[in-house]
Amino acid sequence: MATVHLKRKIAQRIANGHPWIFANEVERVEGNPEPGSVVPVLYHDGKFAGQGYINEQSQIMVRLLTREKSDVVNEEYFLRKIQECWTYRQQLGYVENCRLVFGEADGMPQLIIDKFNDHFVIQTLALGIDKWKPAIVKALNTVFQPKGIYERNDVPVRELEGLPQQKGFLSAPFDTKIIINENGLKFHVDIENGQKTGYFLDQQDNRRAIQHIVKGADVLGAFTYTGTFEIHAGFYGAKSVLGLDISENAVQQANKNAALNGLQDVVKFETANAFDVLKQWGRDGRQYDVVMLDPPAFTKSRANIQKAITGYKEINLRGMKLVKKGGFLVTSSCTNLVNQELFLQTIEMAAKDARRPIRQVTFQNQSSDHPIIWGMENTHYLKFLIVQVG
Amino acid sequence: MATVHLKRKIAQRIANGHPWIFANEVERVEGNPEPGSVVPVLYHDGKFAGQGYINEQSQIMVRLLTREKSDVVNEEYFLRKIQECWTYRQQLGYVENCRLVFGEADGMPQLIIDKFNDHFVIQTLALGIDKWKPAIVKALNTVFQPKGIYERNDVPVRELEGLPQQKGFLSAPFDTKIIINENGLKFHVDIENGQKTGYFLDQQDNRRAIQHIVKGADVLGAFTYTGTFEIHAGFYGAKSVLGLDISENAVQQANKNAALNGLQDVVKFETANAFDVLKQWGRDGRQYDVVMLDPPAFTKSRANIQKAITGYKEINLRGMKLVKKGGFLVTSSCTNLVNQELFLQTIEMAAKDARRPIRQVTFQNQSSDHPIIWGMENTHYLKFLIVQVG
Repeated sequence: MATVHLKRKIAQRIANGHPWIFANEVERVEGNPEPGSVVPVLYHDGKFAGQGYINEQSQIMVRLLTREKSDVVNEEYFLRKIQECWTYRQQLGYVENCRLVFGEADGMPQLIIDKFNDHFVIQTLALGIDKWKPAIVKALNTVFQPKGIYERNDVPVRELEGLPQQKGFLSAPFDTKIIINENGLKFHVDIENGQKTGYFLDQQDNRRAIQHIVKGADVLGAFTYTGTFEIHAGFYGAKSVLGLDISENAVQQANKNAALNGLQDVVKFETANAFDVLKQWGRDGRQYDVVMLDPPAFTKSRANIQKAITGYKEINLRGMKLVKKGGFLVTSSCTNLVNQELFLQTIEMAAKDARRPIRQVTFQNQSSDHPIIWGMENTHYLKFLIVQVG
Repeated sequence: MATVHLKRKIAQRIANGHPWIFANEVERVEGNPEPGSVVPVLYHDGKFAGQGYINEQSQIMVRLLTREKSDVVNEEYFLRKIQECWTYRQQLGYVENCRLVFGEADGMPQLIIDKFNDHFVIQTLALGIDKWKPAIVKALNTVFQPKGIYERNDVPVRELEGLPQQKGFLSAPFDTKIIINENGLKFHVDIENGQKTGYFLDQQDNRRAIQHIVKGADVLGAFTYTGTFEIHAGFYGAKSVLGLDISENAVQQANKNAALNGLQDVVKFETANAFDVLKQWGRDGRQYDVVMLDPPAFTKSRANIQKAITGYKEINLRGMKLVKKGGFLVTSSCTNLVNQELFLQTIEMAAKDARRPIRQVTFQNQSSDHPIIWGMENTHYLKFLIVQVG
């Protein structure tokens, strides 16, 4: 059997719980492990560090699955892990929809499973976990008796692992356009063609946080995607809601979602580039009680972090200028590359440039079905902030 | 009229919004201001910085009330400010109970007003605001038609301002033992003799955060005070709840609160030193599904910060050891001297010492009726954390 021996310098990080072992942290690989197979990993002194899947083609050569020597990684192992994941989500009160498996944070690196009621969407983003796809599907069938399972592996990061981008059914084919319930509302989810797994579950708890501030308010939302925040605003009693997205297709979806909830008279959507439109409306002196921003990551690489900060600052500056005195800015950032401190600093800079005093009303991370492991940056990614703008 | 001239070095902090001016930051005081009166403050270059109340006897010589030259600080000013405070709380959905005025964060330094339905508790902790007590009482009478107003100025910090410690009625006398409603429960509040203003409103939103994890659980709570978290746990379906407090009086209150909600068979309280008892029970191998810790600040001075950290670490270590594998630790820190980062580091150290892996489920600050102003540390004080303990 093959074995991975670590360099001395990496011991502390791994001992502290981090599951990634980069190629340049490996002293040597003993034997000829099959790519993607589970191998034991030893510290420089020969002590057992864990078992993980190896991919010598990837920069992250090993991703640790378990710290237990006695664990046997087989079908039953994944069944047990998925049962544990479901228990945790149930303990937190999730019933219909949740992120069932959040990769590293659930001890199954690079495995994502989103549960949309009886439908499941899977991503296996490393070779080592991709190999266990049949076992994972079997486990889902055992635990849930799903109506359908779909693979959304159309993700570029798979190529770093030598895996093809692909999507398709992992169960009998089914209608991939489904409707889910969230916070008393209904939303269309396009499992096959929606972004990521079809729907952003990570904001499901945060969407409730706008409940009170939107009552009777004129609300503007930018980067609306399929309109979830905006439709919540309408549901929670906003006087008027306008959502903007640059994608015509997103706006169509958003309009469908508004109609699905009978909110089409209150909640409207328009195709627009938020950067341009917010700037223009700022000049025009338009004012809203609540402005909501849920922009994309702006960057996926650490090298471009300044670009992301500039993007966040600029859009928040423009958004803030549209908030009436005493109104609220609801703003998110979904990239772990911009951490909490940096995000808050960016909002502070925007407030200074806008010459508007702000007060923090609420700060939250992603929903609890996406638990955070301290020290694993990629699990600590979503920032959700409400400030009052004076 | 007297005027305060600032030294050059302080300009940036004040320009950034901080309202405190320390004696050693003042270049000179022109004229002979009456102690506690509102005076204009100028930057070193003569530009207008704001108006604030002066107390040359205090280390914090001036506390800025407003940045507007045109503001006239009089009875109407405080009426308008208190109306704004109430509007903000209503916008956030607060109806019955809330912190109506949170000092610096509401632009009224050192003024605390807690609203318990029709009863109001006031603290005026600086000379400058103490002088406006009649105006504030008048404003409360105008806005709320209260059943009673009470002064809880039995706070040592008043002495730094040359003010006596005192408490008593600011309205016709009334029964200071009242009952409030929170999250569907009832609680006795002792306005006259309870801690601080009689009740900790700052955790009112956080108490709901335990809703799901306590279902069917055996729950232990330490530093229970009048049992609010524990009674919530019982209400949310815990199998058993035991709350500990070192004060026999607190335990009596907690038992009364349990009975008030008909939960006395599920939720029990005992007088105990949590440090000792948790340690002993750890040795005994006792285990709970959920352990909740809401300890006091441990220190009030920056010089003793290490003492606070040691206290937090030790109690969290002992608490964590009592959590069943897969259970939850609910833990708070209420001092701004231990900031968020330091608090999380302390919990991480405790987890390491306890040899228990942890996952962050929820992190929140104090309830939104206590807004946070970035850069004003004393407004950013409460940390509320739920972790799953593996």
